[in-house]
Amino acid sequence: MAEAAGLPRTVGLLGAGVIGAGWAARFLLHGVDVRLFDPDPEAERKVGEVLDNARRALRRLTLAPIPAEGGLTLVSSPEETVAGCDFVIESAPEREQLKRELLSAVDGVVGPDVVIASSTSGLLPSRLQQDMRHPERMLVGHPFNPVYLLPLVEVCAGQRTSPEAVERAAAVYSALGMSPLIVRKEIDGFIADRLLEALWREALWLVNDDVATVSEVDDAVRLGAGLRWAAMGTFQSYRIAGGEDGMRHFLAQFGPALEWPWTKLTDVPELTDELLDRIVAQSDEQADGMGVREMERLRDDCLVAVLQALRTQGVGAGAVLARHERALLGGVAKRDGGAEDDEGRPLHRARVQPEWVDYNGHAHESRYLQVFGDATDGLLRRLGVDAAYLDGGHSFFTVETHLSHLGEASAGDDLAVTTQVLAADEKRLHVFHRMTGGDGEVLATAEQMLLHVDTGVGRAAPADGEVLARARGLAARHATLPLPHRAGRSIGMARPASA
Amino acid sequence: MAEAAGLPRTVGLLGAGVIGAGWAARFLLHGVDVRLFDPDPEAERKVGEVLDNARRALRRLTLAPIPAEGGLTLVSSPEETVAGCDFVIESAPEREQLKRELLSAVDGVVGPDVVIASSTSGLLPSRLQQDMRHPERMLVGHPFNPVYLLPLVEVCAGQRTSPEAVERAAAVYSALGMSPLIVRKEIDGFIADRLLEALWREALWLVNDDVATVSEVDDAVRLGAGLRWAAMGTFQSYRIAGGEDGMRHFLAQFGPALEWPWTKLTDVPELTDELLDRIVAQSDEQADGMGVREMERLRDDCLVAVLQALRTQGVGAGAVLARHERALLGGVAKRDGGAEDDEGRPLHRARVQPEWVDYNGHAHESRYLQVFGDATDGLLRRLGVDAAYLDGGHSFFTVETHLSHLGEASAGDDLAVTTQVLAADEKRLHVFHRMTGGDGEVLATAEQMLLHVDTGVGRAAPADGEVLARARGLAARHATLPLPHRAGRSIGMARPASA
Repeated sequence: MAEAAGLPRTVGLLGAGVIGAGWAARFLLHGVDVRLFDPDPEAERKVGEVLDNARRALRRLTLAPIPAEGGLTLVSSPEETVAGCDFVIESAPEREQLKRELLSAVDGVVGPDVVIASSTSGLLPSRLQQDMRHPERMLVGHPFNPVYLLPLVEVCAGQRTSPEAVERAAAVYSALGMSPLIVRKEIDGFIADRLLEALWREALWLVNDDVATVSEVDDAVRLGAGLRWAAMGTFQSYRIAGGEDGMRHFLAQFGPALEWPWTKLTDVPELTDELLDRIVAQSDEQADGMGVREMERLRDDCLVAVLQALRTQGVGAGAVLARHERALLGGVAKRDGGAEDDEGRPLHRARVQPEWVDYNGHAHESRYLQVFGDATDGLLRRLGVDAAYLDGGHSFFTVETHLSHLGEASAGDDLAVTTQVLAADEKRLHVFHRMTGGDGEVLATAEQMLLHVDTGVGRAAPADGEVLARARGLAARHATLPLPHRAGRSIGMARPASA
Repeated sequence: MAEAAGLPRTVGLLGAGVIGAGWAARFLLHGVDVRLFDPDPEAERKVGEVLDNARRALRRLTLAPIPAEGGLTLVSSPEETVAGCDFVIESAPEREQLKRELLSAVDGVVGPDVVIASSTSGLLPSRLQQDMRHPERMLVGHPFNPVYLLPLVEVCAGQRTSPEAVERAAAVYSALGMSPLIVRKEIDGFIADRLLEALWREALWLVNDDVATVSEVDDAVRLGAGLRWAAMGTFQSYRIAGGEDGMRHFLAQFGPALEWPWTKLTDVPELTDELLDRIVAQSDEQADGMGVREMERLRDDCLVAVLQALRTQGVGAGAVLARHERALLGGVAKRDGGAEDDEGRPLHRARVQPEWVDYNGHAHESRYLQVFGDATDGLLRRLGVDAAYLDGGHSFFTVETHLSHLGEASAGDDLAVTTQVLAADEKRLHVFHRMTGGDGEVLATAEQMLLHVDTGVGRAAPADGEVLARARGLAARHATLPLPHRAGRSIGMARPASA
């Protein structure tokens, strides 16, 4: 699978900080073996904790089939890291000399066709590759934290980098579900970090000048423009803000503000001890006792939910996720071929979407019926009710449903529906659905009666021969299963005496 | 409702650009009457279009009960706008002199206790209030586009603004579901726009220097840090990026980068004709023929999805939304108060939305249950199940539903639901709903059994005395009605012999 999808078989990672550990998680969870070096004696524990969080996030992110995890090997020197690797990533601290030494060390021991990428946030690849014997295979691949969830990776070539190396690196990142952004002009900070730095410096000024606390700055971002930035970025948001006259009008309207003192761009606040202490204290207060792993999980849950939200719109990071899921599914469809479903295997799977949740904190009752309706549609497709059948003026309509709620489904829960055909005749189809949650608990059941209709005249009519034969066949096979004890049930309670 | 929830009865709006029209939509959809002035002859059409998009977004955003829309009146002068208003908002273009003139004009004709808020993105309230006779009621309330979806509003007092005015404005914004951020130090650009301006200036430089196109800049934001900003803002994201050692480690690690040329903060790019043309052309290419209303809808759908995603995590803008939904639930209970409905009057009305329609050309079966569920919620509110009751750890959960489909509902159809309480005891509520279409034909019925639960322990528990008394009273009154002939019904059909 790894090779087929453009992934390396084994990746060598130099550095296991927040970024290096994130890379390890993304590769491992895509089935790639990882060899890792970091002088930190606690590296193994830290990587393990990040990996736990990454597994948890990925399970929530997608229903697409994830390959079996790769193997993780911790080694004790940079040279050992890269043995047998066909892709190398350096994620050491942002010190040019340190990075140059590491890159030279691995340059000497790994085949000249193996790409070596640096995760630097803004150092120039032309400088980083200076001491290398094979600088043409060196480039920058700058990811964003958490690396296992955010799709952006900036790819920047140095003066001596070959186009083949850029192409190979971009293919690897795409196979990991990321979206490589090729930085065409080599500049300090590339593209994203220039934007982040500008905002960050201004944020530091606001705290330095006691205009706002770190918590107020965060709210100013996340309750306003941050929501737009997640969806559309800055230019497209402003285009819309320009109204019917679009971008030109926006620029005309807000152009003058560029001349006004609306940012403190001319200088950089000095990180004095006093300012450091203030930021740290405010940040501690904001964290309210939450440890970093816990906060990472909250962040990941938010990111997963936002990515899934954008996927429903096919926009931005959501579009990247959808593409990646299709690629993962394609791999499986090829593996599973024409496998036929039987009554033991769920006819339909779904995940509780955030918008399904009502004020009681779990899915609204109508959403259970939506999922059961989708399961019925799955059954009908298996009986041969396809687009041509519908176009021919025939369909099944539900005439009665008896729903029983036995448990609660919360946002993110995985649901599976199994379906038993209780009876079928020329015009009727009697089915019983069971919905289970991730742990196999039955959350709800639905008994349904469907009527076969001629949609042209809007009346019941016999089903076509082949559909009917399949329905009867399934009913006969399912008759060997016990009758569900909730089938045929009615709702009852003693009425009060008339007032 | 309007008064009870801290909302004005009537709001006067000066200016119907993107921001003014957004304010109009947010107030109207919260049941507040709006009087609006804008010299643009096309103002009415434009506001109508924004309002259409806002209605659509709000319907998707929440299942909470939305009050009946306020009335919109367009007038022909600033003075007419504010007649009878108890809150005024100025959203004119960002020209200090123009704003001062408008503010003075309304200052002269509206009672001195009425708050007048300016939507300015960064002009100082102390300067804007200079010519006013009653400057103490003037302040800045700076919202973000789209005003009807983003919760952030910066509240900034001028030197002569009274604390009461700030308090009143914050109460109004909160009642609109927004989250007022009090700007404690009056500075140009307040808090949010300083951050936005810093990023925006850097973005302009990147395009000016041909480092990136507008589309590449947008991707650099929305595929990376933009996702984090939506969830957590900048400081909290960096705290996590600091790993186990948190904020101090992050500052130590990236502090040096502040000295490096990672932004172009020292200067402002000149908006030459050439740069303007380039940005406009790249923006047009990015838009790919999509008109502004269409793009607004896509943006709104993304924002709705992101807000709902964050609501599942109780974080940032999602927490604001959840709070507001609770308030809306409470507001309705209060509004409906003791007004006892009788069995002849529909408990709930709805209109079939286009997105409810499935491949059979009428509403999906789950949408009938959605409408019946809303009718049940209406009944529960009438019994006294309000936000306080829910917060107290009690609610009713549906445990069984028997749905019968007798007709079909198509997009645009008006639906009405009448409800009969068949029985009620300490823990159970047995109801029967009938849904009729515009011509009175019964389209569907639903028999439901609800269980009263202690949501803290997740078990059935007796209802509170007053709620129980109301439920029993209604059941006794409804016992005089005939028992619906579909009540107590079960689904049945002969099973085939085992295969």
